[in-house]
Amino acid sequence: MRRIGLAVIGAGYWGPNLVRNAQATPELRLEYLCDLDVARARQVLGDYSTVRATASLDEVLEDPAVQAVAIATPAATHLKVATAALEAGKHVLVEKPLAANLAEGRQLVETAEQRGLVLMLDHTYCYTPAVRELRRIVRGGELGDVQYLDSVRINLGLVQRDVDVLWDLAPHDLSVFDAILPAGLEPVAVAAHGSDPIGAGRACVAHLSIELTGGVLAHVHVNWLSPTKIRTMVVGGSAKTVVWDDLNPSQRLSVYDRGVDHQREQAIVSYRIGDMVAPALREQEALRAVMAEFAESITQRRAPLTDGRSGLRVLALLEAASRSLTENGAFVAVRQEIAA
Amino acid sequence: MRRIGLAVIGAGYWGPNLVRNAQATPELRLEYLCDLDVARARQVLGDYSTVRATASLDEVLEDPAVQAVAIATPAATHLKVATAALEAGKHVLVEKPLAANLAEGRQLVETAEQRGLVLMLDHTYCYTPAVRELRRIVRGGELGDVQYLDSVRINLGLVQRDVDVLWDLAPHDLSVFDAILPAGLEPVAVAAHGSDPIGAGRACVAHLSIELTGGVLAHVHVNWLSPTKIRTMVVGGSAKTVVWDDLNPSQRLSVYDRGVDHQREQAIVSYRIGDMVAPALREQEALRAVMAEFAESITQRRAPLTDGRSGLRVLALLEAASRSLTENGAFVAVRQEIAA
Amino acid sequence: MRRIGLAVIGAGYWGPNLVRNAQATPELRLEYLCDLDVARARQVLGDYSTVRATASLDEVLEDPAVQAVAIATPAATHLKVATAALEAGKHVLVEKPLAANLAEGRQLVETAEQRGLVLMLDHTYCYTPAVRELRRIVRGGELGDVQYLDSVRINLGLVQRDVDVLWDLAPHDLSVFDAILPAGLEPVAVAAHGSDPIGAGRACVAHLSIELTGGVLAHVHVNWLSPTKIRTMVVGGSAKTVVWDDLNPSQRLSVYDRGVDHQREQAIVSYRIGDMVAPALREQEALRAVMAEFAESITQRRAPLTDGRSGLRVLALLEAASRSLTENGAFVAVRQEIAA
Amino acid sequence: MRRIGLAVIGAGYWGPNLVRNAQATPELRLEYLCDLDVARARQVLGDYSTVRATASLDEVLEDPAVQAVAIATPAATHLKVATAALEAGKHVLVEKPLAANLAEGRQLVETAEQRGLVLMLDHTYCYTPAVRELRRIVRGGELGDVQYLDSVRINLGLVQRDVDVLWDLAPHDLSVFDAILPAGLEPVAVAAHGSDPIGAGRACVAHLSIELTGGVLAHVHVNWLSPTKIRTMVVGGSAKTVVWDDLNPSQRLSVYDRGVDHQREQAIVSYRIGDMVAPALREQEALRAVMAEFAESITQRRAPLTDGRSGLRVLALLEAASRSLTENGAFVAVRQEIAA
Repeated sequence: MRRIGLAVIGAGYWGPNLVRNAQATPELRLEYLCDLDVARARQVLGDYSTVRATASLDEVLEDPAVQAVAIATPAATHLKVATAALEAGKHVLVEKPLAANLAEGRQLVETAEQRGLVLMLDHTYCYTPAVRELRRIVRGGELGDVQYLDSVRINLGLVQRDVDVLWDLAPHDLSVFDAILPAGLEPVAVAAHGSDPIGAGRACVAHLSIELTGGVLAHVHVNWLSPTKIRTMVVGGSAKTVVWDDLNPSQRLSVYDRGVDHQREQAIVSYRIGDMVAPALREQEALRAVMAEFAESITQRRAPLTDGRSGLRVLALLEAASRSLTENGAFVAVRQEIAA
Repeated sequence: MRRIGLAVIGAGYWGPNLVRNAQATPELRLEYLCDLDVARARQVLGDYSTVRATASLDEVLEDPAVQAVAIATPAATHLKVATAALEAGKHVLVEKPLAANLAEGRQLVETAEQRGLVLMLDHTYCYTPAVRELRRIVRGGELGDVQYLDSVRINLGLVQRDVDVLWDLAPHDLSVFDAILPAGLEPVAVAAHGSDPIGAGRACVAHLSIELTGGVLAHVHVNWLSPTKIRTMVVGGSAKTVVWDDLNPSQRLSVYDRGVDHQREQAIVSYRIGDMVAPALREQEALRAVMAEFAESITQRRAPLTDGRSGLRVLALLEAASRSLTENGAFVAVRQEIAA
Repeated sequence: MRRIGLAVIGAGYWGPNLVRNAQATPELRLEYLCDLDVARARQVLGDYSTVRATASLDEVLEDPAVQAVAIATPAATHLKVATAALEAGKHVLVEKPLAANLAEGRQLVETAEQRGLVLMLDHTYCYTPAVRELRRIVRGGELGDVQYLDSVRINLGLVQRDVDVLWDLAPHDLSVFDAILPAGLEPVAVAAHGSDPIGAGRACVAHLSIELTGGVLAHVHVNWLSPTKIRTMVVGGSAKTVVWDDLNPSQRLSVYDRGVDHQREQAIVSYRIGDMVAPALREQEALRAVMAEFAESITQRRAPLTDGRSGLRVLALLEAASRSLTENGAFVAVRQEIAA
Repeated sequence: MRRIGLAVIGAGYWGPNLVRNAQATPELRLEYLCDLDVARARQVLGDYSTVRATASLDEVLEDPAVQAVAIATPAATHLKVATAALEAGKHVLVEKPLAANLAEGRQLVETAEQRGLVLMLDHTYCYTPAVRELRRIVRGGELGDVQYLDSVRINLGLVQRDVDVLWDLAPHDLSVFDAILPAGLEPVAVAAHGSDPIGAGRACVAHLSIELTGGVLAHVHVNWLSPTKIRTMVVGGSAKTVVWDDLNPSQRLSVYDRGVDHQREQAIVSYRIGDMVAPALREQEALRAVMAEFAESITQRRAPLTDGRSGLRVLALLEAASRSLTENGAFVAVRQEIAA
């Protein structure tokens, strides 16, 4: 097997995780860790590594040993860095969000498509065994009709300097929604409420209400100020309801055969109280699966599960949410980012 | 001690709890259980009771042995039943919500005030040891400035025929907010989003965003369709944050000395990770304390903790929320229900 | 339907629960609450009851309206009280343990059998929906071969004056073992370790190791001094393993399709990691089911699920455990309490 | 700063963790990973490492760049490997248990002491922030008199081929007991009960009752067959009680101001129900602290926290427990491993 030469760009918060997982992926050959602060890059690599540290993106992009890059720099730089990589003929894996705004995201997708290169989003959660099983249950129909979604992602988090809590945390929830929802169930409009009780200059607590096709309501609560950590998503359906608790390693998914049925004609409401099943899930680091998917999509010349368009759909939601924040919480229509 | 003669009106879902707790309150003497369905009233009393069952409200209100009534009939009947009781000179304890709408609620408050009678709301949760301690922490200043509130009340609930999930469940959260928030921190406007995924004809899932004085955001999530039961309220403050988990009997309150501080001048964000304290709380049935407060407010001729005006403030929020639901989630100003 | 006339004897800790549940059982007609302290009995009945309070056991036993008694007096008095009741021709429901020792227990069983009267143990936990389902899974074979049992029952408990923690708490665990274990799997010997770290004069912490047929090990940990409350039983089997957590109302039973298999011939150990199922269970007060079973066994002239002999088997274990405590933890053979 | 040259011996289950943490410790310079299966060693190091893999222990021990070794080979080989290392003048960090039996352990301690070399046990849990705080609370007197200890360590574990569940898992609990118990409170005797329900040829479930000075009872439950994972230790004291739940990252330690007091003279039992405090703990990988302590004890020429003698005390308990297993659970006196 020929390994795909990879460079990781960015040695900040997430970069070290990319480095570690790239090294553990047999299909990849890690060539560089690149950061403007080359001392930081060296520190991340440690004293025992054969991987090269560099401050020069040009050096990386000119090296024919590099076929692909994984970008973990701030969102504001994604357009520039990813465009340079794509123009140098490199496949690109990029941190969420795809870009600082929808227009820039579209540019990246177009560039990648024109050149026939893989552009993949590191929507990490989509690669957890829990979300893959959740996707199977929801898309596969076992859940029945989707009735509501509710996602809570709160903890004492780093107050970011460049983005608010929506842009920092909600991409996780929105990308999972994007991955699990069946075709035909799409965001129509979004309303956002936020507050900045510590005077940070941007929302630290936010609530998103997303109207999906047919009036289905999805809600996201993100919060940097909570002393307790919660990572829970509920997907309610007409046949089953699934609770995903990412902080409960012994029972991440609970599939309830419980619900409320309503027969409109007879005006009868009935309650179903059946068993709960917690499916067995492999323990696997999601980022390992991200790396494997990146490598495979390059080798097989196919779109990855979380391709550039999934990144655009998340950006479209974030932009609409930001506009709602400035419009006192009014529902804002979501631009449909459909086919190429 | 002279006992206060009491009649319970309504033998439906909540009435039996009022009967049981009234019988256990030494300051009260239960005289009647009154329900249009007298057989139902007899069944609630059981085969071993000396308490009288009756279908006649008149009989109850004409009996001079009755000084007070506890009303557990549907909200739509509160105006009529409570007015009759007040006009007959009886003190009134009434189930939440106070009335079917704000105008009716105001009528009741006026009638009670004109006649110098106690009008008390059965905002049961306000009488739990947990909420009393929460009130002490928030009002007493230990929490610092309130930064945000978040309440979740979801489970597989009875889909009511007469009210939506907001009017059914949110009064609990709103009455607790009302009881714990310090003077000067009041609801300014409310936005509500809801959905009815089972076609019940009214919202079964709803989210409330309440803007309080100074831009503080409070959020309430109520849901009849969730297979899991959650009853959690977080009150975030500049000094402490409290989590109230009503379903964790061994640790209902957790007081975290954790938070995020921001010094605007130096643009410094600092994180405080201190201990968590779970205060010891008595185990006490809240409804017992409701009964004791009702009796004491009658004896001492004083307003109870949850007086008619607290009921009006909750009604004002519910009405504004309902209007927001019909106005596509726009923020609707909350009528201030202040002085007499 | 003719109701069975019942008297409750003993108005202490447990008596009020018997009174409440007897009143709610249509097949029973509660006639008396009898306690030497008649004021206490009156207080338990409250101000609104038509049930008679009395201090005279003779009065109760001489009353032909009484066909059955439920005894909730201290264990030391069970022989005397229950014998008097049986000799007066009354059916008997008796609190655990059946009697103060095995010899007295045998006397009671013999008396009841000679007179053809029901003698039933109030082994309350055996009547919970969780234990009934556990019994079905274990006895019905779904669990496979029983590999081990482990029960933990610890909390800050009342330090009893007359009995140690073994006699106070372990009857619950032992009676459940008795109810669920399949025929042929019986206690052979028991070793007990205890300690009295507060100088109470009797063991406040104790561990029981019970050797069952074929070397299967069952363990019980009981403790009056623990600040946290735990009520968990694990029954490990070759096909399934069940965890019963009595303090988790939303998931009392968890049935794991997980385990370790060993094929002796090939010396292969294999691990099975399958799904977990939490069966739907009705919420029902166990004591209500106890009353129903008592009434039904009287009417149908049959032995109840927890008959006198089940009480003897528990007593035999407790006696052997007490002897082990005095013999420095040595295994003591358990007397087999088999056929009549 | 001169770094201490280190070699890791053994690339099996635990070796990779030693490699990773040694590389992250600034005071150490990892020179070799040594394993008879050099391919396995290479695989552990991965494709990007400058650390040398070797199958030759001699090569490692003859290299003057190596001043210390960390041994993660099977217990049966500890005597041989560690003796060779000590005789070559290397400091030794060794996996628990210290050796295959007490006699071999003593030999190692003597060899190290004669040569003035550090011999340290990798009792990893003793270096967690939770156990360090637990130690402070217990040894520092805040807990009052120790009343009982109870440790549960159960999960679906690897059925080891060379040792039973006691020797595999209980060293963790016993080494923590050793680290936290105050001077003067020592194991006197131990009784062990075990069973092998899958026919593995050794105990897979075991219970240890340890009698400490003054009759205090400590209990350990270890189990390879449990489908659920529990890692809980309770240390009950006259003033406080601490619960350590290693699987609850948000609240590993809970310090309860609850308990039962007994005044012998007046025969009064009183109950104290105070607050619970969950102290803030740093999140730190324990093995990092192990490495730091190893390096510091070498540099400062002092005994480490978990020195060879702590390893002997654990071995003495394990040997006595094994003898108890063969003597049908009788209490076996624990050899006091005191002064040098």
